[in-house]
Amino acid sequence: MDIQALRSKNPDHWMRATAIRALALDAVAAANSGHSGMPIGMADVATVLWSKHLKFDAKRPDWHDRDRFILSAGHGSMLLYGLLYLSGDPEITLDEVKNFRQWGARTAGHPENFHAKAIETTTGPLGQGLSNAVGFAMAEEMLRARFGAKLVDHHTYVVAGDGCLMEGISHEAIGLAGRYELGRLVVFWDNNGITIDGKVSLSDRTDQVARFNAAGWHVQEIDGHDPEAIDAAIAAAKKDKRPSMIACKTHIALGHAAQDTSKGHGALTNADQNAAAKQGWGWTSAPFDVPAEIKSWWETIGSRGSADREAWEARLAATSGARQAEFARTMAGEAPKKLSATIKALKKQISDSRPKVATRKSSEMVLEVVNPIMPETCGGSADLTGSNNTLTGDMGVFDVDNRKGRYVYWGIREHGMAAAMNGMALHGGIRPYGGTFMAFTDYARPAMRLAALMRIPTVFVMTHDSIGLGEDGPTHQPVEHLAISRATPNTLVFRPADTVETAEAWEIALRQTGTPSVLSLTRQNVPTVRVDHKTANLVEKGAYVLAEAEGKRQVILMATGSEVEIAMAARTQLQAQGIGTRVVSMPCWELFEQQDESYRRRVLPAGPVRVAVEAGMRFGWDRWLFGERGRREKAGFVGMHGFGASAPAEVLYEKFGITADAVTQKATDLVLGRWQPDPRVD
Amino acid sequence: MDIQALRSKNPDHWMRATAIRALALDAVAAANSGHSGMPIGMADVATVLWSKHLKFDAKRPDWHDRDRFILSAGHGSMLLYGLLYLSGDPEITLDEVKNFRQWGARTAGHPENFHAKAIETTTGPLGQGLSNAVGFAMAEEMLRARFGAKLVDHHTYVVAGDGCLMEGISHEAIGLAGRYELGRLVVFWDNNGITIDGKVSLSDRTDQVARFNAAGWHVQEIDGHDPEAIDAAIAAAKKDKRPSMIACKTHIALGHAAQDTSKGHGALTNADQNAAAKQGWGWTSAPFDVPAEIKSWWETIGSRGSADREAWEARLAATSGARQAEFARTMAGEAPKKLSATIKALKKQISDSRPKVATRKSSEMVLEVVNPIMPETCGGSADLTGSNNTLTGDMGVFDVDNRKGRYVYWGIREHGMAAAMNGMALHGGIRPYGGTFMAFTDYARPAMRLAALMRIPTVFVMTHDSIGLGEDGPTHQPVEHLAISRATPNTLVFRPADTVETAEAWEIALRQTGTPSVLSLTRQNVPTVRVDHKTANLVEKGAYVLAEAEGKRQVILMATGSEVEIAMAARTQLQAQGIGTRVVSMPCWELFEQQDESYRRRVLPAGPVRVAVEAGMRFGWDRWLFGERGRREKAGFVGMHGFGASAPAEVLYEKFGITADAVTQKATDLVLGRWQPDPRVD
Repeated sequence: MDIQALRSKNPDHWMRATAIRALALDAVAAANSGHSGMPIGMADVATVLWSKHLKFDAKRPDWHDRDRFILSAGHGSMLLYGLLYLSGDPEITLDEVKNFRQWGARTAGHPENFHAKAIETTTGPLGQGLSNAVGFAMAEEMLRARFGAKLVDHHTYVVAGDGCLMEGISHEAIGLAGRYELGRLVVFWDNNGITIDGKVSLSDRTDQVARFNAAGWHVQEIDGHDPEAIDAAIAAAKKDKRPSMIACKTHIALGHAAQDTSKGHGALTNADQNAAAKQGWGWTSAPFDVPAEIKSWWETIGSRGSADREAWEARLAATSGARQAEFARTMAGEAPKKLSATIKALKKQISDSRPKVATRKSSEMVLEVVNPIMPETCGGSADLTGSNNTLTGDMGVFDVDNRKGRYVYWGIREHGMAAAMNGMALHGGIRPYGGTFMAFTDYARPAMRLAALMRIPTVFVMTHDSIGLGEDGPTHQPVEHLAISRATPNTLVFRPADTVETAEAWEIALRQTGTPSVLSLTRQNVPTVRVDHKTANLVEKGAYVLAEAEGKRQVILMATGSEVEIAMAARTQLQAQGIGTRVVSMPCWELFEQQDESYRRRVLPAGPVRVAVEAGMRFGWDRWLFGERGRREKAGFVGMHGFGASAPAEVLYEKFGITADAVTQKATDLVLGRWQPDPRVD
Repeated sequence: MDIQALRSKNPDHWMRATAIRALALDAVAAANSGHSGMPIGMADVATVLWSKHLKFDAKRPDWHDRDRFILSAGHGSMLLYGLLYLSGDPEITLDEVKNFRQWGARTAGHPENFHAKAIETTTGPLGQGLSNAVGFAMAEEMLRARFGAKLVDHHTYVVAGDGCLMEGISHEAIGLAGRYELGRLVVFWDNNGITIDGKVSLSDRTDQVARFNAAGWHVQEIDGHDPEAIDAAIAAAKKDKRPSMIACKTHIALGHAAQDTSKGHGALTNADQNAAAKQGWGWTSAPFDVPAEIKSWWETIGSRGSADREAWEARLAATSGARQAEFARTMAGEAPKKLSATIKALKKQISDSRPKVATRKSSEMVLEVVNPIMPETCGGSADLTGSNNTLTGDMGVFDVDNRKGRYVYWGIREHGMAAAMNGMALHGGIRPYGGTFMAFTDYARPAMRLAALMRIPTVFVMTHDSIGLGEDGPTHQPVEHLAISRATPNTLVFRPADTVETAEAWEIALRQTGTPSVLSLTRQNVPTVRVDHKTANLVEKGAYVLAEAEGKRQVILMATGSEVEIAMAARTQLQAQGIGTRVVSMPCWELFEQQDESYRRRVLPAGPVRVAVEAGMRFGWDRWLFGERGRREKAGFVGMHGFGASAPAEVLYEKFGITADAVTQKATDLVLGRWQPDPRVD
């Protein structure tokens, strides 16, 4: 690559872009860790985008109508930090840049959305940002349809690398964007031809242009170091009604000894080579230093959008007070005040009518009353709408000609759905929930983990939550998936026993602002166990006494979801034998953990025998059986010890021994001191 | 669709294919559960493939050189069961067909590979079969290169639906097949235009033909009900050196009232409609009855390959005894006899030289001695070769012009890699292992679960297994992933402390025939803790006493992996205070669980204080802290309580409090009775 030719052709642009390059080189070298080559290679594209197209006001990164810039190739985080520092972001200061990748810095190795307002999403796991961006763009469409283009009118720009495009999730994201004609989504593919292991061609020869065309995208191919070509391509992309992919031919680590090599992907820390690169670039400043005129130019870029922002604020102020309040509430992710009364009314009605329904149906009953009062919800399913019970009558279907539609047919794309829902939640103004079978938690996992890490309240509606789904067999029967979600930090895992608990769980999930929820729901019918109406939300405590022992309390049965019915039946049997038995419903471990010691002690006092019942693996249950004032010789578990099988649900419960009889037997043995060490546990 | 025209045009073919349709309709109706429409729609394609092209001998489904038939659209399982029953498979009898989806039947809701030899793989989670098939086809290429075309010379055929092609994993699989020119892979796309939620166009408008072309495939479009077109397309596919996709335009539930609707996807149980469909098909037999001449024709098809199979056996018998023995050993998945001595020699050398290296490097050291004596291993990495340390010098790289290469550059495709490795293991003759960062367990999860469910010994090399990876930050730092794999049935999770344990773990993993292994390996250096050479494989016990207490045993420290070093340092501190401290290394919980009570009691006796140290979530540890003769008031945990952060590794260990000092403090407090309930646990 002829650096001198680049320099001389567009000298002003070159130096402005090279400020990003130099900062990246310096920060990575100082940290002795990170990825230098990508920011160096993509500096031209980013400079043109930010200076000529991106709508933003650097000092106000919380402006709702800003364009979103998403660095899907998150390892190139110094590209983003450089742009933010240069343009005057109040949080990404020079000190932060100097502290790249150090403890307490906002400039983490990969961008973390909670470190700075201008960091739209956490990226690093490849393909996630691209897929988040689909949700950002959908949210923009939905909100523009709802609030009008005067308040919502922006674009979503993505920088994606070869890794993003090789990951399977990219296929799901690209298909969604093409199907829904997300015309305000513009993806820059950093086509540098290099991966960690070597040339891209080592492992992939996909014709990306043809691939995006096949998915219905507008595609352009440009020289990613030609500012005029970049500018023209962005202008064309914004005009086209399809989502746009701009294939930017770039040189990773441009002008460095490691240019166009996989070494250039990583941390460039050789001082001599770095000095030589800077010399070639014509960059003579000290490390981390940016000439005043360049910094000043970038700050002008950063403030370029302030007039737009002020005009927008004026337009917002000119709308009715009620509309302003609703816009503010929606963007803040606050549940409406009447949610509580709505849930209470439903609970009362259910405790009276006592339906015997699957909790996936219970969930639908909740959504039928919630969706009308929460216009910000966006429901959907990965092609299991009738099974997940996620669609209610009033929502309308999101489509090219119905941007007001609040239900998304995500297709058979669990991962893409989860990541796009995360994007909606990150965008703000939309409260997304989406369904699949709980066993396919596996497919959605990378995005579910990121929801927890990013502190966003995405709701995952996971139906068919045990062997209770029956004949579809072990591929479809989750056994370890409750443990998987429970082991994940900052995740609320709800396994409600009936419609009342489902309503309470939904209320909690819909009030979250920083925590995702997993709703584990049955395929099979379960009775209403909460037959006495209580206005208090008992699920909020995580676990509570559903049925007290009569007479001396000798046994505590702990259960969740569909197994609460079994525990209640066992209690009847035990009481008939004169064994006083309490049933504790434990719909949400994480919330119970947050209760104070005295409450937890009241629910799980020392002394009685404890038997836990759950149609999943024991993994994790020992905490409640032994840890919370329990004793190993007085504790037992009734549940799964391996994968399920294909047969009708009732047969499976019988064959796998998850029955009231089995619970009663285990409890009786323990009460009588007939405890035997379980070789699997004790 | 004009059924009469189809019937009259190819009457013999029609009735043979309709035998499959009728069996599917009957079995699903009897089970009142399942998927009728796909087998009905794809019966023509399957009939032509099986009768004119598929190389198989129905009575000998274990013939190594058979063509593989993979039903990626696993919900259409009755297509496979119908084919197997009709052609005379010894395991899928008429009784099995009649017991479709019932307890104990081989005819599970979705095909389970361990239910019958002819079921090549477990399918149902969409896209997996297609991705397994990539591994099958790679295995065939590798084995043909190794053993010659006289012994290995077959094709892999796949039936995939719209769901398979919408899932992200399909992108990874298609990219791999295109890149590696897997010319013996032939995929039939059941292009019926229907998903569960409605028409495919509801959620997807991808031009699949263009998409496969973009990935370098040979693509044909045919009428999936025209037997001559099907035959010609298969013939052309076999001739082309690229992988082939045959887009078969079909009608789901052909000839049934539910034809071409999403209702047709599911269980067709309306007796009148089913009777009408059969009438239209010209099928007059009683339920489950197949006219003798049709059954007889199918059995002829089933035995058509027996001569080929006998000729193959003759060729095998004509090779040298050593070669026969090696072929048999390889295909049986037996480790070579000298594996044990090789591992022992390495252990001895390591205990003497005591290197301080990362366990990912230890793993490479093991592979350097193992790969030369196990020509059946196939290594690889999802674009992290230098980080996962999975490549050894002698392997060669698998490529179009080097089918003998045993290392696969999988690209940035963790999921596709895992599923393709499963395919290799299922094919037999190849022992696959592949690497990625442990946090990306999430990406590979669906395939990792299936390895466990399918009882195959795939090895997942998961490096960078904690906050010890440092600056890349929380997206790349696993905290819940040990729990995720440990909660999964039939999975061995190894977290070795040093090179000796790594060698022992590898030996165990390489001896497995029915269980996958997860190797959790550090990025950072750790010392050799196994400094006294022992020939016995101590990891085989799961946990063992690494260092005995001096004086009265008051404390037992339990640790895994990189935290064993911390436990050893804490032991030194505690002993200095006169507190006798045992260190138990616990590299594999699952193996420890399998030990008898007396061994477990010897390792973890009642009495002493217990402190567990692991740089992951506590989830699951309570079993060892409390359950195994432990006591809550004498137990503590030092580890992670949430996500990590971006900073140098040593800083993170300090900031998150995973240090020898913290362990010593916790143990001392417990010994002195200064136990305080941990609100997070107790």
